[in-house]
Amino acid sequence: MFKIISSPQNALIKQLILLKEKSRQRKKTNQFLIEGKRELSLAIKGGYKIETLLFLPDLFSESEAQSMSQYNIDIIEISKEVFQKLAHRDTTEGVIAVVNSKNHTLEDLKLTSKNPLILVAEAPEKPGNIGALLRTADAANVDAVIIANPKSDLYNPNIIRSSVGCVFTTEIAMASSEEAIAFLKKYNFNIFSAILQESEPYHSQDYTLPTAIVVGTEATGLTEEWREAATQNISIPMQGVIDSMNVSVAAGILIFEAKRQRNFK
Amino acid sequence: MFKIISSPQNALIKQLILLKEKSRQRKKTNQFLIEGKRELSLAIKGGYKIETLLFLPDLFSESEAQSMSQYNIDIIEISKEVFQKLAHRDTTEGVIAVVNSKNHTLEDLKLTSKNPLILVAEAPEKPGNIGALLRTADAANVDAVIIANPKSDLYNPNIIRSSVGCVFTTEIAMASSEEAIAFLKKYNFNIFSAILQESEPYHSQDYTLPTAIVVGTEATGLTEEWREAATQNISIPMQGVIDSMNVSVAAGILIFEAKRQRNFK
Repeated sequence: MFKIISSPQNALIKQLILLKEKSRQRKKTNQFLIEGKRELSLAIKGGYKIETLLFLPDLFSESEAQSMSQYNIDIIEISKEVFQKLAHRDTTEGVIAVVNSKNHTLEDLKLTSKNPLILVAEAPEKPGNIGALLRTADAANVDAVIIANPKSDLYNPNIIRSSVGCVFTTEIAMASSEEAIAFLKKYNFNIFSAILQESEPYHSQDYTLPTAIVVGTEATGLTEEWREAATQNISIPMQGVIDSMNVSVAAGILIFEAKRQRNFK
Repeated sequence: MFKIISSPQNALIKQLILLKEKSRQRKKTNQFLIEGKRELSLAIKGGYKIETLLFLPDLFSESEAQSMSQYNIDIIEISKEVFQKLAHRDTTEGVIAVVNSKNHTLEDLKLTSKNPLILVAEAPEKPGNIGALLRTADAANVDAVIIANPKSDLYNPNIIRSSVGCVFTTEIAMASSEEAIAFLKKYNFNIFSAILQESEPYHSQDYTLPTAIVVGTEATGLTEEWREAATQNISIPMQGVIDSMNVSVAAGILIFEAKRQRNFK
């Protein structure tokens, strides 16, 4: 039998609610919450260490919970009331896990390819955009994503959700733009900064060498640092009335042009 | 001087609130609301007929309002209280307009290019996705967008907002999938349906002839109709853990591959 927590006033539950809601708490404890079976299995696949698993027996069976004990996890049965306090989404699968964060330093990046392709996003703001960028990065199987000058922590529930769990399976580093540029130069990446000024059309460039494609925010674009660091500034020709594009769409177009040139290898 | 309405209980204002909130009311009256200067100017540019302009003098000057009278518009000054009832967004520019809908029939599409490129989206659901698709269509200056089996009306405030006004400047038709297929076949389009099954990699195809690129929903993809009607089914190679992609990102990748092959002409 498992330990049971039925009161939302329980001290552990109160702490977990903080973990869900507060980036500060996630940073302090180096932990975060995951919700749902798919996300849980992707986190395990991505090498994350699960500390505690909380399940609602109506939705997640005891045998399912039992099968998780192979991972040396604290397993706790919770009441519906507790579950509703912890759950972030409307529809869910009766399972919530407390997971240890990873270090997302540049030094920790595992780049195994001889000819890597990296997506850099500077200061992305909306969780939905970060999630969409990570989904694109996953689909293209890029070697890594670097979030430069991050505005939020990676384990925001809305990022986890909008990435459909790709946040767990993608190699991700977070660093200042300065550090990221130094890293890319050290490893001889060609840096392609997506901007409008003094840029070449993206499809005129060669992305078959080690390549970093860098996108900024929709509101302000990239900082001067990235424009100066670029091997070449690039842009997507805009032929419409509006002179802007959703950042995750722009990143998708650029990354898949690189993939096309590499024959999707 | 302009007519002034200061009470949210005013009969006209009550009707306009319905227009903002209810698709049914928009269909019944063939009118909808626009909010903001940029959207207003794009609607005028797109050939929409403005019926009534309501402005809050704190944010939109009388001289600005006066300058709009060239378009033969009823101009009404409103109170802050009325404005807040009508406004959809948090930040805004003190101007709301009542605008006549257009017919978005296939027969009304103006295709002036000899070699048109059309984006078809079947049954898109989320207003944010529709807005992003329209922004991509605008950036690529496609000849038209066809929304097949539409799930919502085009003048939903969230579609207007997420399209950044592109909804007004893009040629758009709405029709059943059956009608859209008949239309495309009649005009000898090559139809490329984006699916996973029995498909060729998108970058192996030629998009330089009259081309329709067709995308479905993230949840269920395209219907059988589009697969059978396709000149060729195409797919974006998925090399990651997750076997899905944001529909507006996928559409961006496909449309811009077509643009690349056409040298952005």
